Amino acid sequence: MNTFTITHHDGGTQARCGVLHTTHGPVETPVFMPVGTQATVKAMTPAELVELDYQIILGNTYHLFVRPGVELIERCGGLHRFMGWERAILTDSGGFQVMSLAKLRKVTDEGVHFQSHLDGTRLFLGPKEAMEIQRRLGSDIAMVLDECPPYPCDREYACQAVERTLSWAALCARQPRADGQWVFGIVQGGVHRDLRASCATELVKLGFDGYAIGGVSVGEGPELIAQGVADSVDHLPWERPRYLMGVGMFGQMVAAVARGVDMFDCVTPTRLARHGTAFTRLGRVAIKAAVWKEDQRPIEEGCGCYACTHFSRAYVRHLLNANEVLGVRLLSMHNLYRFGEFVGEMRAAIRANTFATFCERHRDVDRVVPAAELMD
Amino acid sequence: MNTFTITHHDGGTQARCGVLHTTHGPVETPVFMPVGTQATVKAMTPAELVELDYQIILGNTYHLFVRPGVELIERCGGLHRFMGWERAILTDSGGFQVMSLAKLRKVTDEGVHFQSHLDGTRLFLGPKEAMEIQRRLGSDIAMVLDECPPYPCDREYACQAVERTLSWAALCARQPRADGQWVFGIVQGGVHRDLRASCATELVKLGFDGYAIGGVSVGEGPELIAQGVADSVDHLPWERPRYLMGVGMFGQMVAAVARGVDMFDCVTPTRLARHGTAFTRLGRVAIKAAVWKEDQRPIEEGCGCYACTHFSRAYVRHLLNANEVLGVRLLSMHNLYRFGEFVGEMRAAIRANTFATFCERHRDVDRVVPAAELMD
Repeated sequence: MNTFTITHHDGGTQARCGVLHTTHGPVETPVFMPVGTQATVKAMTPAELVELDYQIILGNTYHLFVRPGVELIERCGGLHRFMGWERAILTDSGGFQVMSLAKLRKVTDEGVHFQSHLDGTRLFLGPKEAMEIQRRLGSDIAMVLDECPPYPCDREYACQAVERTLSWAALCARQPRADGQWVFGIVQGGVHRDLRASCATELVKLGFDGYAIGGVSVGEGPELIAQGVADSVDHLPWERPRYLMGVGMFGQMVAAVARGVDMFDCVTPTRLARHGTAFTRLGRVAIKAAVWKEDQRPIEEGCGCYACTHFSRAYVRHLLNANEVLGVRLLSMHNLYRFGEFVGEMRAAIRANTFATFCERHRDVDRVVPAAELMD
Repeated sequence: MNTFTITHHDGGTQARCGVLHTTHGPVETPVFMPVGTQATVKAMTPAELVELDYQIILGNTYHLFVRPGVELIERCGGLHRFMGWERAILTDSGGFQVMSLAKLRKVTDEGVHFQSHLDGTRLFLGPKEAMEIQRRLGSDIAMVLDECPPYPCDREYACQAVERTLSWAALCARQPRADGQWVFGIVQGGVHRDLRASCATELVKLGFDGYAIGGVSVGEGPELIAQGVADSVDHLPWERPRYLMGVGMFGQMVAAVARGVDMFDCVTPTRLARHGTAFTRLGRVAIKAAVWKEDQRPIEEGCGCYACTHFSRAYVRHLLNANEVLGVRLLSMHNLYRFGEFVGEMRAAIRANTFATFCERHRDVDRVVPAAELMD
């Protein structure tokens, strides 16, 4: 089994620091993984991500499967080599995007028949296929294929999804892997506590390298998210890494880390950059707002990123209004810097045994900052 | 008068090497200036342009005038500070874009009344206004306002445009300048040899820091371009810099340098990057072409740019097809590297007194390379 070392356990919460020892280098946890959907973290070079000290990124199997295709990436030496990224990569199974993006889906016990959202090509993704694609991509961490029901969803459907998820997980566990590849199981069960518990318990019997919590943050609100996390984590082995899928608001990460979650991914830093939103220590700031028209200060005062040490809010706002690529680049860079800094702050608080205080101090971390507050 | 030092004169042609000593550092000529229309060279950071060793870029007065506005840039400390570019900037007068982009134009002897292409705001640009805007932007080199007639254009109109250009130039020459700002006059006259000659001669009497050749490359074809250049240059003082406006195909630059032109600007490296075209030593290559689908080689073999030393044609093609910002970034970076390298090669050939040979060897430099030729 691949090595995950827990290096520190916070005294007051279940938060812990650890290291995933992947074949493409160490990954310190808690970790936030930027999303590189189409073999690129949007608007960023690999060199810039290394500069920001990211040790792992996420690739979307569905997107890579439909374009440019697995054969092509394999012939180009695998996903790392194709995209020029020498550190770790986690790939999802493709299941989530098949259900949210693809056309004419038909789910059976064998897998999902669907048409590519790009050109309508008929494709099939089952547990074996999902593992084979990820093996050929050569990711460091592969995810099993699961069924993620929407919210709200009745108990019967949730139950069925758990059964299918478990039978697919059992199949996935037996598939060939890339050298040193980790495979993570995924806990489903919606908002039903007993289903989460039994799903987690059964998955653990299959003995995965790590465990993900799936099917949360699908519209159920923060309290039910926290409950879903707790209901899953409590049945997972302490010594294996836990990954909360698709979650990346600071407040959600803090709450989940306090419950012993180690890994996160989300498109927000780059997606909200495209919408003109900056993540700052004070909260989220709309950089396109007219109040910043002539503001000489950086996106965030005191920030050490390239954007903040070289450019003003007025300039970044101008670039965004003029649809200039550099605007999105600078804001993506700033947001990814802030996300990296934030998980670093979480790790430091855990090592200092002060994570409970950290949680209290970050209750409002995701608020939208009223412009007036930043005026002077 | 600002200092332009001619450091070498090629033995076999009129080509020369020189240095413009601007308040924002030296500019070695012959030089290609990347275009930063909206206070940014599209998709590039200032740091990347410095890395590529560019010493001067161009800003478009018209675009900056309509958005974000001169007042704003002035309050932000001028154009250099606003965009975080510490080296030299040349600004055009805005006249060309007023004629090509603005709505409801009315040209009088005083200047041009027009509406912003963005929001219809009524604006006016005359010789005094053009110089005042450029003074407030704080560019290192300002251009006089000229009238650039379209092609074809009858002799009477061309003659009128020359008269107006000269009377505006006389007014521009007397306007206040930014500290150390150079002002260049512009030769018009279309394809009429005597008009070019008289325009140049009259401009020289006004005593500008440098002279531009305007109104070429407006659809008249390569032979008439070369003729227009020759007809202008022959009447300009040897010791002042000459700038061929809006021209940037390699073949056109080579021909003009051989006639004693020193400066060029063009949007091609970044614009054609957005269209998927790479400039290479062999000619122009369409990177989106299906033949590169699985090609492991870089955009250009042997190229030392970041894109070519880290990524394959297959990857860049994928990024372009997937509309990923990184695709445009990598191709812009490569093209600007190639343009910088090419003018460097021109300077080296001049210093070696072999520019005539250089011209011969680069007759086909702008051809579109058939894919078959690059296949192996």
